[in-house]
This record gives sequence, C-alpha cells and structure tokens, in this order.
Amino acid sequence: MTFAIGVDLGGTNLRIAAVDEAGKLLEKVSVPTETGHGRHGVLDQMCAIIQQVSGRYAATSKLAGIGIGVPGIIDMETGMLRQSPNLPGWEDYPVRQGIERRLATRVILENDANAAALGEKWLGAAKDVDDMLMLTLGTGVGGGLVLGGRVWHGARGMAGEPGHINVQRDGHPCGCGSHGCLEQYASASAVVRLAREAIAGGKAPELAWLQEAGDLTARSVFDLAQQGDRPAQEVYRLAGRALGVALAGLINLLNLPVYVVGGGVADAWEAFAPAMMDEVPKRSLVYRATAPESKAPGPKTVISRARLGSDAGLIGAARLPMLSS
Amino acid sequence: MTFAIGVDLGGTNLRIAAVDEAGKLLEKVSVPTETGHGRHGVLDQMCAIIQQVSGRYAATSKLAGIGIGVPGIIDMETGMLRQSPNLPGWEDYPVRQGIERRLATRVILENDANAAALGEKWLGAAKDVDDMLMLTLGTGVGGGLVLGGRVWHGARGMAGEPGHINVQRDGHPCGCGSHGCLEQYASASAVVRLAREAIAGGKAPELAWLQEAGDLTARSVFDLAQQGDRPAQEVYRLAGRALGVALAGLINLLNLPVYVVGGGVADAWEAFAPAMMDEVPKRSLVYRATAPESKAPGPKTVISRARLGSDAGLIGAARLPMLSS
Repeated sequence: MTFAIGVDLGGTNLRIAAVDEAGKLLEKVSVPTETGHGRHGVLDQMCAIIQQVSGRYAATSKLAGIGIGVPGIIDMETGMLRQSPNLPGWEDYPVRQGIERRLATRVILENDANAAALGEKWLGAAKDVDDMLMLTLGTGVGGGLVLGGRVWHGARGMAGEPGHINVQRDGHPCGCGSHGCLEQYASASAVVRLAREAIAGGKAPELAWLQEAGDLTARSVFDLAQQGDRPAQEVYRLAGRALGVALAGLINLLNLPVYVVGGGVADAWEAFAPAMMDEVPKRSLVYRATAPESKAPGPKTVISRARLGSDAGLIGAARLPMLSS
Repeated sequence: MTFAIGVDLGGTNLRIAAVDEAGKLLEKVSVPTETGHGRHGVLDQMCAIIQQVSGRYAATSKLAGIGIGVPGIIDMETGMLRQSPNLPGWEDYPVRQGIERRLATRVILENDANAAALGEKWLGAAKDVDDMLMLTLGTGVGGGLVLGGRVWHGARGMAGEPGHINVQRDGHPCGCGSHGCLEQYASASAVVRLAREAIAGGKAPELAWLQEAGDLTARSVFDLAQQGDRPAQEVYRLAGRALGVALAGLINLLNLPVYVVGGGVADAWEAFAPAMMDEVPKRSLVYRATAPESKAPGPKTVISRARLGSDAGLIGAARLPMLSS
C-alpha cells in the first residue's frame, strides 16, 4: 500500500493528514499554527508533525510523497511564496527549500485553493470527472481549475483567480485594483459589507442589531436570512446573482462538466444558491444546452456544493505526490 | 512530405487550401459558396474542389487528412451542426457523413473560430506557445481556446464562447438571452449599434452623415475615427474597454502566455487597442505581474493582434488532421 502526507498550512491552523492511495483518510492532526517564533518556528512545528505522522505508517506502507497547501501565490519553479496575506512576512522566503532541508526529501507546494479544488476532484463533488472548476468563498474568493485531473497553473503558476472576474463593471473597488470583482460580492467580507450597506439604508433593523452587538459576520447574516429576515436574504441574493454572472461566463468559456462552490460562505448555500441558479441559465447558452434537466444526450453541466468541507485542501495536498509520481 | 487539406466553409465564401506539414501554403482556392442548390449542392462543390486540389499533390506527397472549419456549434461525436446562423437550414444535418461519403475518406469538422485559433497558434501570433486564447471579432464575437497545442472543446464541444462573457451586468440585451455580453460591445454589429446610439444622442454629425449615406459599418466608423472624428473614436474606445474587462478576467483565470485578437473588427486595432490596453492592467493583478514590461522572470502575458488575417481558419483547419494522426 502507498500513502501520502497532505498539509494545509494556514495562518491560524496547521492541519496534517495521512491519506492512502485509495483516498482513505488514515489520520488527521490539527493544531494552531505557532506563529510566535517566526517562519522557522512554523516550519519546525510542521516538519515535526509530518515526521511523527508518516513514521506511524512507514513500516507497513510506502510514502508516495508530501504535498503542502499554502495560502498565497507560489512560484512553482523556485518554491517561494510571492504573495501571502495570511502568512505575513513569508513573501520571497524559500519555503520549499526550508521544508526539504528539514525532512531530507522532496515536497510539492501548491496554492491552498488549488489544493482544495484537487481534493474535491479526487474524492468530493467532482470525483466522477477529470475537468472541473472550484470557487472557494472565504474571506476572499479563490479558486482552482483542474483540467485532465491536474491543477491548471498557467504560464507562471498564477492561474485560477476566478475571484477577480468582473461581475459589476464599475462596482465596489477591489484590493486587486479593479472594480466590481466577484470577490466584492460573494466573499465573507463582501457579505458583511453588503449588510453594512443595507444597515446604512436604514431599513434593516435586525442587521443593525447584529452590528451593534458586534456580531455582524457572514454566518450571523445567514442565520438571520434563514429566520426569514428580508434584508439579510437580500444580501445573499446579491451574492448569488454575482456568482451566477461569473459562473455563466465560465460555463460559456470552458464547458466543464462540474463547477464546485465551497469555502466557509458556501455553508450559506440555501441563501444564495436560488439566485445563482436563477441567473446562470438566463446568462449561459451553453448551460441551457447542457443543464441536468435538458434532454440532449451527452455530458451535463453540474453546479454543486463542495462535499469535503474544510478537509478539501488537506486531501488535495495529499493527492499531489500521487499525481507526480 | 506530408500535406493536408484545410477548408473554411462560410455562408458567403468557400475557401480550400493545401498546406504542407511545415506550414507552407501550397495552394489556396476561394470561390463563392453555391448556396442556390441547397446543402447537397454546397457539399458537391466543396468535395469537387478538395479532390482537384489534393489530386495535384497526391503523386508526390502523402495526404495527412482533411480538416473543415464550419460556422456554428458542432456535435463532435455525430459530426452534425447544432446551431449555424450563417448556414441556414444546416442544423441537424449530418455534414461530416455527407462529406465522408462523397470523398470516401475520414474528415475532421471543427468550429470555424476554434480553427482560426488553432491557425494562429500554429503559424500566427501564438506560434511560439502551446496555450493561447483567440477572440474573433466578426459579426459576433467568437473565440477559441487552445491548451497543450489542441483545441479545448469542453465536455460537449461547446467551450470557447468568450463572446458571451459578461462585461456590463445589465447592459444591452444579447441574442443568447443574457445582457451585456462582450459581443454586444466589440463585434461589428455592436460597433454599428454604438454608432447609432451616438447619432441618436445628436452630437455625432459625421456618423449621422454615414448613416444617411447608407454606409454605417464597422469599417466606415473606423475610417472616421482615424480621421479624428471624436464620436467615432468614442465608439471604438467603448469596444476597447469592453475587450479589456473580458481579457482581464480571462488572464486572471487562465494565466495564458498569449491572447490573440482577430476577425474583421481587429482591423480597427489602432482605434480600440489603446483603451483595451489601458483597461487590462487596471483590472488584472496577474497581468500586472506578468506584463511584457514587468521585470519579474518567467513567461510574460502577451496580447497580440492576429497575424494570419482571414487565412487563420483555413490554416487551422489544415492543422487538424496533422494533430490527430
């Protein structure tokens, strides 16, 4: 039997798993990321756990390799982080080299959203297809494109940023420099901003109450929407419409069989999916010709909620060495 | 030596070429499409020319095969046209079967915009890369995505419709059912509509004069823009901005090394490219990190005018049998 180690290196939590080649999760460790001793401290912590976990299976199984999902843009050639808002101070630090020196073995780095897409492709909502795209709705909107079973990196490893597809030409300014990116309408931060805008309009008393209580979050807005609060429902309807506009363009361009929506905000699926699924067929001729309910023969277009939850990145990271070996 | 036959079957012109494996154009025939005798008449005409042309090289060279670019959506499995506005009455007609019976050999059908993309990838503006996207600005806006040197068809052969990416959320209604598609701002029809809107605004006397003379076309608006007419320049500036919004999203998603803009409207490159190239870096973080003028190492992002003109589809069609053999 062969197994691999997958790592999800987050700014808050460090998660490490052993997964066998059939996709069985053998073990999962989750600890707070020890950022107090700098980058070296985090790598020491991570490598110690990797060695403990892999040591427990090395006697009976062959280690296929180690895959590590990292937040930020990775230079695939040098193994350095180029941009990493959630790991401040790690930019232009030779992460891969530091890990490989500690473990005396090769490791594969991957952007965390790409790893999550690969996880959903391997064992989750897209496990029956080779080509898929995942949107990850978190603090921002990330994503990953998987073609032929592998992450599509593009010419410089910077592909897979569907969060910066435009959905509102002169919309809200985005940290990327543009205006009206998907991220400004369908991320957790966007949900909070849209709620604040509703409060400022003076007709959202329940949302205002949440804000006064210091509990205005994507989660609390969703809870309110589920309780029937119209302004909270409208916030998620706007998010769903924005997702629909972006997905329609992606479907027209790529005609993939499966699009997966995951990340923390996807927990609010019931609140945004109806508006999203209303928008997509109106805006995509390719979707209408291939919708699950269409009668034409051949592969359909499926838009699905992610299935692996927060394990997607971990599982996708473990998949990386299996693909490259 | 090996050669292939490429065909560009248009509603107006039928063009057939012999191209050798090195990309040398051996011969090109262009005749008006004889639509007077129906679909059978067109196929008879096309197959007669294919046999004449290929006969001239068959004694000294080996025929690799025959590729045919067709306007419309092709069902790649059955070889039938699904939608074909420029060949009315051809829907659900077994085109490939009709050609193969006449020629007693296998042929490869491809959407004409995909064939053009493949042509530009083989011998044109993207000849040095394996991955590229082409936007074809014609009556509508079509396109083709080439990954790993081959056309990306998607799950049902319907990929490559970047003309229906949204660039203006609640913009002009599109024939596809959506609003604000790229096609509504950057096609020849869109240029004429934008010019009409300027005329209706009452501040575009030169454009109004063109309209009265019955000569309001994408070409005549471009000529006027080149002569310094501000309203005509503004029409192409709007087209350029729309192209920039769409390209920025494509670059963020795919990180390809080359994006090619072709088709008849691309002849107005000088009129729309400045606005397009102003918009892209503002809206794409991936472009800024990979722009030709950026100092970072690694592959750049190039946005280029097409180089093969109206031969792109013909050359790409001839390439098809070389890739599949």
